[in-house]
Amino acid sequence: MAVNERPDALLTDLYQITMIQAYLDHGETETAVFELFIRNLPERRGFLVAAGLDQALDYLETLHLSDSDIDWLQRTGRFRKNAVDYLAGMRFTGDVHAIPEGTVVFANEPILRITAPMPQAQFVESRLINILHFQTLIASKAARMMLAAPGKLLVDFGFRRAHGAEAGVLAARASYLTGFAGTATVLAGEKFGIPLYGTMAHSFIEAFDDESAAFEAFAHARPDNLVLLLDTYDTEAAARKTVALAPKLKAAGIAIAGVRLDSGDLVTLSKNVRAILDAGGLRNVTIFASGGLDEDSLARFMQAGAPIDGLGVGTSLTTSSDAPALDCVYKLQEYAGRPRRKRAVNKATWPGRKQVWRRYGADGRMAGDLLAREGDEKSGEPLLELVMQGGKRLRPPPSLDDIRRHARREFERLPESLRALQPGPAYPVEVAAELVELAAAFDRRIQAQNADVK
Amino acid sequence: MAVNERPDALLTDLYQITMIQAYLDHGETETAVFELFIRNLPERRGFLVAAGLDQALDYLETLHLSDSDIDWLQRTGRFRKNAVDYLAGMRFTGDVHAIPEGTVVFANEPILRITAPMPQAQFVESRLINILHFQTLIASKAARMMLAAPGKLLVDFGFRRAHGAEAGVLAARASYLTGFAGTATVLAGEKFGIPLYGTMAHSFIEAFDDESAAFEAFAHARPDNLVLLLDTYDTEAAARKTVALAPKLKAAGIAIAGVRLDSGDLVTLSKNVRAILDAGGLRNVTIFASGGLDEDSLARFMQAGAPIDGLGVGTSLTTSSDAPALDCVYKLQEYAGRPRRKRAVNKATWPGRKQVWRRYGADGRMAGDLLAREGDEKSGEPLLELVMQGGKRLRPPPSLDDIRRHARREFERLPESLRALQPGPAYPVEVAAELVELAAAFDRRIQAQNADVK
Repeated sequence: MAVNERPDALLTDLYQITMIQAYLDHGETETAVFELFIRNLPERRGFLVAAGLDQALDYLETLHLSDSDIDWLQRTGRFRKNAVDYLAGMRFTGDVHAIPEGTVVFANEPILRITAPMPQAQFVESRLINILHFQTLIASKAARMMLAAPGKLLVDFGFRRAHGAEAGVLAARASYLTGFAGTATVLAGEKFGIPLYGTMAHSFIEAFDDESAAFEAFAHARPDNLVLLLDTYDTEAAARKTVALAPKLKAAGIAIAGVRLDSGDLVTLSKNVRAILDAGGLRNVTIFASGGLDEDSLARFMQAGAPIDGLGVGTSLTTSSDAPALDCVYKLQEYAGRPRRKRAVNKATWPGRKQVWRRYGADGRMAGDLLAREGDEKSGEPLLELVMQGGKRLRPPPSLDDIRRHARREFERLPESLRALQPGPAYPVEVAAELVELAAAFDRRIQAQNADVK
Repeated sequence: MAVNERPDALLTDLYQITMIQAYLDHGETETAVFELFIRNLPERRGFLVAAGLDQALDYLETLHLSDSDIDWLQRTGRFRKNAVDYLAGMRFTGDVHAIPEGTVVFANEPILRITAPMPQAQFVESRLINILHFQTLIASKAARMMLAAPGKLLVDFGFRRAHGAEAGVLAARASYLTGFAGTATVLAGEKFGIPLYGTMAHSFIEAFDDESAAFEAFAHARPDNLVLLLDTYDTEAAARKTVALAPKLKAAGIAIAGVRLDSGDLVTLSKNVRAILDAGGLRNVTIFASGGLDEDSLARFMQAGAPIDGLGVGTSLTTSSDAPALDCVYKLQEYAGRPRRKRAVNKATWPGRKQVWRRYGADGRMAGDLLAREGDEKSGEPLLELVMQGGKRLRPPPSLDDIRRHARREFERLPESLRALQPGPAYPVEVAAELVELAAAFDRRIQAQNADVK
């Protein structure tokens, strides 16, 4: 579906609709509370960055099944009139609490809570996870790159190998809100106003019989921010051609802004190219690197003192290649006023509505979180806030630039141990005693029931 | 963008449009030939399955920039009138050769070739890779699951953690064409007619105060194909509740079709649950497993003789979690009638238009491929065929069921060494002598040019 347009309402799992049939048949339409969280962090993640809330709220605010959706559901013969009628009239009328986009979050901390009549709350599960999981995944990956290459210009080059259209565009959004300078994906520029970056491709150079002629032709098409691609045939030879061409371009009023290196040993090549450019009087020409980069290559460049000014990151960013999924779930915490809990092996959840309280040390850095029952006052800053009531947003969404500022401040407050690419000991997230007792009381009740059938 | 609707034309990279400006300025609008291929296979892949061609041809056939796209491009101030006018009138008028969907392919084999005026051929690069890369990625992953669990019912459960809406729906398509029985994603059922599967969620059971009451309520909503979820609290206790409930449901005319296990040691649990069901007279009730499965767990279940009849596979399928991207590229092979080639370190490509010839052994299995210049007649079966001419498809797309049949036949013809999850020696793909000579001649010309500036 198009970003920002009405999402297709049939983006859900079949069992959600089957359960709605059963809920309606049995009058189980009371208020349900679901929370969305990540159960465990991937191996090399010490923290995550919440993202995607704006698209999630768009989805909820505009959710409705079209006439053709309803026709199709009817024709499947799977659902009875009461369910089809309910779905035809269904709008999201619930409340949403959420942690703002750009906030650092940890395992088991709810980043979104839905409070709504059970059938609605059940229906939206699949797409809410789909939206929030992906942008949180990408923002968290992008944050690692920001931390690995402080002060460098980072650009998203990864549309082509992102998993489909929506992933490509929303990866541009998620990386921009984390601090990336921009993206190459034109649609992300149009839809979200994200700054666009781009240079030239090898094919352009190959289309000309001569590399210098290709550079010159391209220069006239991009006189404002000219970046020449050097590695089509021989990177250092192309750097010398750049130096040779500069006076002629200058005479035509065109300054070369930068060069791009896209293959080979980028540390050595960037140093050699820098030397060639400097010797040729092109000290102001910047060096931009790309080609299979990830946060580890960025860290390596920094450590080696490679004279690289900007970096285009593609596949590793837009697929979060080392960890392409998070253990993101949406779990029932309360129904009809009573706490609920799943106890499946290794998948148990904390019951009830929860709040996350974050404390800060004297140095201003995050010092520990507490997962507590909602309503219990704890010390620190509460992270979840009410953002939608009765199906309507309470305020306009923050701008992407506001979210960027918030994320930057979050990164400043990260404990030192979480700033490394190989995170150290886990950040402390404690569970309040009242919540532990709530879970124990729940378990005692269920055990009594299962004792009957053993 | 919505699957099957007009894709958003601004799904491209900025540099494609910048290059179009330069191509137009310099009259470089002659015929270009680009080929799309995968340079290297991921570590644990011995072969790939081509997929996504139908969506790629849809994209090409319907490509055009809307008035608002054009307005926006103009407002960026980046492009001059000649380029904006060209883009406003641009339609894809080229030819497409491709390897049919569902065909087994290997590294360096072009799965698609575009022959079109340079600006068009350049513009479509980003989205063509985006479409073909993703479905080929997922079909190739799904094929591993099919091979790991022959004869089992496999279902895509992975929409929620797929990377966005389009990825979720197209992953359902790519896995279905590979032989999966169906998907839980409702929109994939509506758009592509893929069979839908689904059971019930833990939240449904938790919403009731009593697990047996939840089972009974659900049974009446899904009397035709009732699958009960057993692991919300205690899997074996729930199996005993299933047995106890069966006579009452039978009296109401409802047969229990299956049970689902979603956590714990699935080998042991499936055996214990099978024993409980059998002892309770429920021999016909099937066991369905899910929960973090991948091809390795499927192979383990088979080896352990776990009595599991069907499997729901989620995240590992829809993100291709062990290899979430392929080294998929789109490279200029010929321009204005002359072969072209990129020579960047480790990224050199074979120039010119190519055909892939596949030979089969006496046992009917694939015995080796040959990459040759188009037009050179070789022994074996040529894989690339002309599918679009002058921007129009030559024939209606094959049905998904036709593609499934083709894929099944392909898997039957796979050499034994490629059927294992840990592939053995690489399948032989040779390069014809004429192609090697073409590349050498090209290199001699470029080296002569670069000698001037060294």
